[in-house]
Amino acid sequence: MTTPELDDHRRPTYEDIHVMIGNAAKKIVEEFKPDLMVAIGGGGFFPARVLRTFLKRRDEKTGKQRNLPIQAIGLSLYEQVDGMSEEMIGTQVVRTQWLEFGAPKASGAGDEVAARYGKDSGGLVGNNVLIVDEVDDSRTTLHYAYNELLKDVRATLDSIPADVRADLPPTRFAIFVVQNKLGPKRAELPIYNSPADEKIVDGVADGVYYYAGETTPPVWIDYPWEMQDITEHNRLSALAKARNQQAN
Amino acid sequence: MTTPELDDHRRPTYEDIHVMIGNAAKKIVEEFKPDLMVAIGGGGFFPARVLRTFLKRRDEKTGKQRNLPIQAIGLSLYEQVDGMSEEMIGTQVVRTQWLEFGAPKASGAGDEVAARYGKDSGGLVGNNVLIVDEVDDSRTTLHYAYNELLKDVRATLDSIPADVRADLPPTRFAIFVVQNKLGPKRAELPIYNSPADEKIVDGVADGVYYYAGETTPPVWIDYPWEMQDITEHNRLSALAKARNQQAN
Repeated sequence: MTTPELDDHRRPTYEDIHVMIGNAAKKIVEEFKPDLMVAIGGGGFFPARVLRTFLKRRDEKTGKQRNLPIQAIGLSLYEQVDGMSEEMIGTQVVRTQWLEFGAPKASGAGDEVAARYGKDSGGLVGNNVLIVDEVDDSRTTLHYAYNELLKDVRATLDSIPADVRADLPPTRFAIFVVQNKLGPKRAELPIYNSPADEKIVDGVADGVYYYAGETTPPVWIDYPWEMQDITEHNRLSALAKARNQQAN
Repeated sequence: MTTPELDDHRRPTYEDIHVMIGNAAKKIVEEFKPDLMVAIGGGGFFPARVLRTFLKRRDEKTGKQRNLPIQAIGLSLYEQVDGMSEEMIGTQVVRTQWLEFGAPKASGAGDEVAARYGKDSGGLVGNNVLIVDEVDDSRTTLHYAYNELLKDVRATLDSIPADVRADLPPTRFAIFVVQNKLGPKRAELPIYNSPADEKIVDGVADGVYYYAGETTPPVWIDYPWEMQDITEHNRLSALAKARNQQAN
């Protein structure tokens, strides 16, 4: 086997990413205590699934470990979506799937009536919502997701009677990405520098917690789940690591 | 480091599963030609994301490679879901998220009107739909997902004028799981033995294609995305592989 010329692509292995997510999870649990995740598909699917492993929590009623619910949303930024003009691609975010909230429906047996708001309702309102994606590049997709979810929450809060609303816990948002790329962003987020910054305004936090598995230079990232040949990907990843160790 | 006693758990690594998915994808493309995936969360998230890499297809209009859309559904079988009685858990499937179809909504610009049925509509009707999950154990979840999607398709077809319906391609279903566990199933699926079995009845295939990355004995499977310690998981996986090679 010949040694290929290594380009400057970043090539994390599955294991690299798994470990990064595990490390980030500690801080997320301490600082933010998420109640549910919103995974942006398809890139957010893998990180959300792994995060769930590290975010298992004890149910206060039953004492059992339980999984954080994951809701998926489909957002498309760079991809061709039917019905979109060429100009819109790359500058527009298109929803291919959005959230469906409300009481869970049991199959077979008669529907159970569940609380629609607050802790364990499965909805956003009154919960700590962790938005998950693979990479924060231009920030456009994350900006869209955060703002649209925020709009949904405010609209829902407006529809709730004032006395019920007063009893709800605040709705708080956080973002987790595997990699945050350094460089100019095309959209801004009201990111908290520390939990001391947090202020609740009309039942909703006025900013967003932000967590990244790592911060990288603005280079191309080859994710393992995008690779046709995972063995070759891991080989190049190991080569780059050896080269970087030599350079240090 | 001491060698632990190996139990009979099956411990595929991320790379093992990635390769299995790549191999299965060839047959899925040849035989079924999926138009979209429905990932059952959270287990189906990783396989669906990897499958997408292997199922990229050339767009007939633009000539570009394009990604297969992934829609997510949330189904909960074993887990505690609020509002469920203890007896229902394990025997009932609970929807925590379902599909949202229809024309994609563009943000900002005025909504685009897209065809609601048939190829590239983003919906089920008139498409080849690949349902994706991690494991087929009791078959309960897959049975629920397939039958509910089928119901949705039939209800939609009933609502379409006969002349429009007549022009639609058939709706076909397939299932992909990473592992199919041997042993008794609690639910049956009308699985095709070969494509020759397929018959279209009232616009819908009368059975379902079935693909598994591998078929395993009915042992416990430790998925890498469930592991707190991925290094230890990979170490035990390698030990088991070495032991099996010695045994052969």
